[in-house]
Amino acid sequence: MEKEVARESYDIFVVGAGPAGMTAALYAVRSGLKTILVSRTLGGTVNSIKEIENWPGYNGPGIELMKSFYNQLKTYPIEVILEDVQNIEKKGKEFYVKTGGKEFYTKEVILATGIKRRDLKIKGEERLKGKGVSYCATCDGFFFKGKDVAFIVKEDSKIEDIVTLSNLANKVYVLCDKKLKCEKDLKKFVKNEKIEIIYGGVPQEIFGDKKVESLWIKSASGERELKVDGIFIEVGTTPTTEFTKKLGLKLDKDKFIVIDENMETSVKGIFAAGDVTNSKLKQVLTASSQGAIAAKNAGDFLEK
Amino acid sequence: MEKEVARESYDIFVVGAGPAGMTAALYAVRSGLKTILVSRTLGGTVNSIKEIENWPGYNGPGIELMKSFYNQLKTYPIEVILEDVQNIEKKGKEFYVKTGGKEFYTKEVILATGIKRRDLKIKGEERLKGKGVSYCATCDGFFFKGKDVAFIVKEDSKIEDIVTLSNLANKVYVLCDKKLKCEKDLKKFVKNEKIEIIYGGVPQEIFGDKKVESLWIKSASGERELKVDGIFIEVGTTPTTEFTKKLGLKLDKDKFIVIDENMETSVKGIFAAGDVTNSKLKQVLTASSQGAIAAKNAGDFLEK
Repeated sequence: MEKEVARESYDIFVVGAGPAGMTAALYAVRSGLKTILVSRTLGGTVNSIKEIENWPGYNGPGIELMKSFYNQLKTYPIEVILEDVQNIEKKGKEFYVKTGGKEFYTKEVILATGIKRRDLKIKGEERLKGKGVSYCATCDGFFFKGKDVAFIVKEDSKIEDIVTLSNLANKVYVLCDKKLKCEKDLKKFVKNEKIEIIYGGVPQEIFGDKKVESLWIKSASGERELKVDGIFIEVGTTPTTEFTKKLGLKLDKDKFIVIDENMETSVKGIFAAGDVTNSKLKQVLTASSQGAIAAKNAGDFLEK
Repeated sequence: MEKEVARESYDIFVVGAGPAGMTAALYAVRSGLKTILVSRTLGGTVNSIKEIENWPGYNGPGIELMKSFYNQLKTYPIEVILEDVQNIEKKGKEFYVKTGGKEFYTKEVILATGIKRRDLKIKGEERLKGKGVSYCATCDGFFFKGKDVAFIVKEDSKIEDIVTLSNLANKVYVLCDKKLKCEKDLKKFVKNEKIEIIYGGVPQEIFGDKKVESLWIKSASGERELKVDGIFIEVGTTPTTEFTKKLGLKLDKDKFIVIDENMETSVKGIFAAGDVTNSKLKQVLTASSQGAIAAKNAGDFLEK
């Protein structure tokens, strides 16, 4: 545990280092603003995209694109700290930011914290995270080459990840608890001998000592234990906004941050960009563009 | 002159092949829509940017970035025609588009025609365009290596182009008709022996038979003939919207197309993206993002 508590002041404090955050930081630092970028990880959920084909001019892994963002950014005089932000609140004319080991003051904040994947909230899930339980088939599929896995999806899941898994694994059990949509989406996989689709299958508990050994499920045909080494859970996402509670930002019904066309939130001086916002189209490209707009308007706001 | 008049129908007709148009086309064709991209040139004004540093993950010439956009786009089943669009109008439930040699019908249109550089409207200018008269120092400067040129700027011009020109040319006369701002912006170039700044210099006429030979100017110190081979005119931009007259689109006071957050114009089924719109921040990145949003919403609109 780091005990040191430093206190530093910035013009722009960017939280999150996905496409939105890194672009916001790029535009802010290029405008001559004293900028800091704080994030738990670099790249965000884009790192898990195996092949990006709709970032203009680029076809390739998400993680490579994010590396190119970061390599460009670090040619500028910008501070990057890999830590979780725990709290942000207004103090006087500035904002106070608390991370794991430090405190900061900043004139403005750009929130680009993206989304987290939802979990199932069943027994054994939390304990076996990273020990067979994964939330990203495209990131972790490779670790289960030749093994048996379960893939748990909902209506809005990335069904195409089934292909990734079936190319790698020995056997893929696909569970979907919303029967109708599953039937339609999963039809094309019926002939694949590696895939067993369990319509209406609902996961109950994950078993295993030091790693996943099996998944207990309920389905129309009764209860059943699936002997698997890996369990991929892709049942939706939720925006990362917990640490903003004291700001009192306006959120939409799904907890996404409400922004205007300038990426400004309901709190003056706080901007947001990317997946964490209530914008409709969520793409690497649109997130990145929002980052640029947020930084531009944050800069203009400072000059006033 | 081409006499053939074909008639073809599309889902999405994209006009303009800069960042906004090429991205709109990419997103449209990736959504499975029958898409056509029609533009006078590929790349648009971005081609003239010598070094782009704020397209995330990329540092390099604008034209190379635009080539990468195009190379990606042409891997998809999309028709690309290099022609001027002369007219678009509503006919029945569809839109009718007339280019130089063809007629088309389309369900929806995405306008991404960007901006044109303003001209001086002085004698000799039109006749000597491309024969010494240029509107882009970064594109055409190289052709005047070791020669004498004039550079005509206004308050909002890219002053940094002076550097490009002075690196190439033997002598650069800089004319600015708004004295105060010029003095401030041009001060740093005073010591450069290749540069002669003419405060309050107003161009009167361009002379030359087959190519530019001189520029006649008026200034505080009287009239004068500048013997030059090249004249670079960078006095502002205007959106390219002439061919949309029959659509009756809502334009702002500077003739930019008014759009909403979905990139929809005042006419149902007509979308716009990029520099031609009234959006505030005009960047390659934001234009490209707008192209994606326009295509997404155009696609959604078709499904209704």
